[in-house]
Amino acid sequence: MVPAMGIKSPNRPTLVLTCGDPAGIGPEVVFAAWAATQSHARAKLRVVAESDMLAGILSTRLELPPLSIVEVAPDDTRDSSPETLLVVSPEAADFPAQAKAAVPSRPTLVRQGVISAAGGKSAAQSVEAAFAMVRSGLAEAIVTGPLHKEALHAAGYDVPGHTELLARACGLPDSAASMMLWLGAQPATGTSRVGHLNQPAGLGVVHATLHESLASALAHLSSEGILQAGLRLDSLLTAILGRTPRIAVAALNPHGGEAGLFGDEETRLIAPAVAQLAAAGINVSGPLPADTLFLRASRGDFDGIVAQYHDQGHIPIKLLGMHRAVNITLGLPLVRTSVAHGTAFDIVGKGLADPSSMLAAIDVAVRLVEADYGRRGKS
Amino acid sequence: MVPAMGIKSPNRPTLVLTCGDPAGIGPEVVFAAWAATQSHARAKLRVVAESDMLAGILSTRLELPPLSIVEVAPDDTRDSSPETLLVVSPEAADFPAQAKAAVPSRPTLVRQGVISAAGGKSAAQSVEAAFAMVRSGLAEAIVTGPLHKEALHAAGYDVPGHTELLARACGLPDSAASMMLWLGAQPATGTSRVGHLNQPAGLGVVHATLHESLASALAHLSSEGILQAGLRLDSLLTAILGRTPRIAVAALNPHGGEAGLFGDEETRLIAPAVAQLAAAGINVSGPLPADTLFLRASRGDFDGIVAQYHDQGHIPIKLLGMHRAVNITLGLPLVRTSVAHGTAFDIVGKGLADPSSMLAAIDVAVRLVEADYGRRGKS
Repeated sequence: MVPAMGIKSPNRPTLVLTCGDPAGIGPEVVFAAWAATQSHARAKLRVVAESDMLAGILSTRLELPPLSIVEVAPDDTRDSSPETLLVVSPEAADFPAQAKAAVPSRPTLVRQGVISAAGGKSAAQSVEAAFAMVRSGLAEAIVTGPLHKEALHAAGYDVPGHTELLARACGLPDSAASMMLWLGAQPATGTSRVGHLNQPAGLGVVHATLHESLASALAHLSSEGILQAGLRLDSLLTAILGRTPRIAVAALNPHGGEAGLFGDEETRLIAPAVAQLAAAGINVSGPLPADTLFLRASRGDFDGIVAQYHDQGHIPIKLLGMHRAVNITLGLPLVRTSVAHGTAFDIVGKGLADPSSMLAAIDVAVRLVEADYGRRGKS
Repeated sequence: MVPAMGIKSPNRPTLVLTCGDPAGIGPEVVFAAWAATQSHARAKLRVVAESDMLAGILSTRLELPPLSIVEVAPDDTRDSSPETLLVVSPEAADFPAQAKAAVPSRPTLVRQGVISAAGGKSAAQSVEAAFAMVRSGLAEAIVTGPLHKEALHAAGYDVPGHTELLARACGLPDSAASMMLWLGAQPATGTSRVGHLNQPAGLGVVHATLHESLASALAHLSSEGILQAGLRLDSLLTAILGRTPRIAVAALNPHGGEAGLFGDEETRLIAPAVAQLAAAGINVSGPLPADTLFLRASRGDFDGIVAQYHDQGHIPIKLLGMHRAVNITLGLPLVRTSVAHGTAFDIVGKGLADPSSMLAAIDVAVRLVEADYGRRGKS
């Protein structure tokens, strides 16, 4: 892959978007982001979806941008633009060696706003097709909309979500993949939002433990896990920021353990991992008490934080900017970003869905491809 | 005690302020809050401190308000005003039956900005004297400045802080007292702060477990503890808000336990406590996933939250408004509020200390006395 650094470069990369579960707000935020993103100047955007389904949603919702839809082949090389949605059929993308006409596209019937096997199946098939395009060199990055775990299960996919689907597609165990929660720079507008991130660069959070009970997280917390989280965080932030990031490692216990009075994980597990990170040349501080650490980071003291468990990272990131947070996949040999919000079935079709997270996911995916992130895993 | 409900009532209550450790920013925030608070119209304010020490600090710092200092007897009944600091000597307050002249006041030598036994001793003696005034009916509430635990220990006081000192003074075990973190209504100015609380009423947080390691908190979490936290939160918020508060109980595990996949504390411990709270007539919801709960509360959906452990409550409250958060003591038969910040030795004397928390602590103490909170424990 040749990184496309310049505006209007003939080598600009191809980004494949998916809508996630089409019964959720995924299609809405994809439409809105497609019309608003400035990334068309730096990347060729595609949506992997059934074009009839998208056309059906577009035609019935007056609040959506007036996009025209053009179905293109997976290997089509035309530029994208804000006015025309370029759609690749999942069947065509998934079987690029076969003729596209061999698998006729049929519109999937997915009822809006409810959990269904059809919605789960559509989400899974579109990300599998997007992966097929990346695997065959037709695209450089995947940006996914939100799916619903129960719909995925109803469709017979026994995986927690997109990330594990992609890990398995790469031939890797689920545990190989993890994620960074990313909050980009505060937009110039929208200052009436709940939280503020008073720093220009953005803030990334990688968790040492994630989707498990708090008791299980405590049992699984290890210096090795904290070290790996720190290394991944540093590597990803270096790619996004183009400089050495300032990393902080959160303490686990109140007041950072209060000098051993409130637990020993700080001295037993966290401090050794911080020392190893420092020895690896990383600009790292910690362990620091979590309640003031996120406040300090929001004021610009740090670019990234290693959180020790799910809520320690998610509570502050959602307060600071849930509507524009992005998940970035770590540990797989590809660039993949995702909205950090869910399907939000309760507001589907009401014109309330906020495309900020999808916009940010597209933006950071372009930056990662330009920085050649994901390349190391491939080579 | 006769509650003083009206402005300029002859029965307006007496509030005793302490500076905490005089080596920290306590004196600065007391001076600034004294000059700025509107509570002189609703309460008689006093500062328990050695007047020579306060005069020494005032005379050397140009950034402090130009207050004059008048030493008064503990039973003096004059009104207070923003221009004149009314100071009660700790010796006089602590021995009201004896003549004040019997214990000559000597200025304590406390070096500014460092931990010292003299600073710890001054903090402890001033709150003990303030308690003596409340016990003997000369004051209705105590508002404390920040102390430093190590200074307290250096002075020979084997207690974690003010709250436990007061519990012991009441003849109760340390465990009898707990606290609510309180974030008052967003001030009209100061919107450039980190966090926003987009609701007029304020937000209170009581913890089911607090100053212990996370592992210990998990081991100690119980339905009874959650129930008691909810009852105390409801009672205190009712007094502050003057109406039935909307309470939410946070889940412990990621995604609220993900239907049992990430732990069973939600169904085993938290849901039963929520059911008991509801049965007691409390307006309560939960358990709700913590990462979105605080966001919802900040948007005005709830007045109070039961947090399951220290950082779950402290991370969001500090992000939303650390500079103006207040600690309110629960479980003791008196009204006592405190700044939620520390001694901040690093900024002492630099004109950087923010009096917002002290102002809010005074304001809410007046409201609690007017609502007769703390009375039940006495009777």
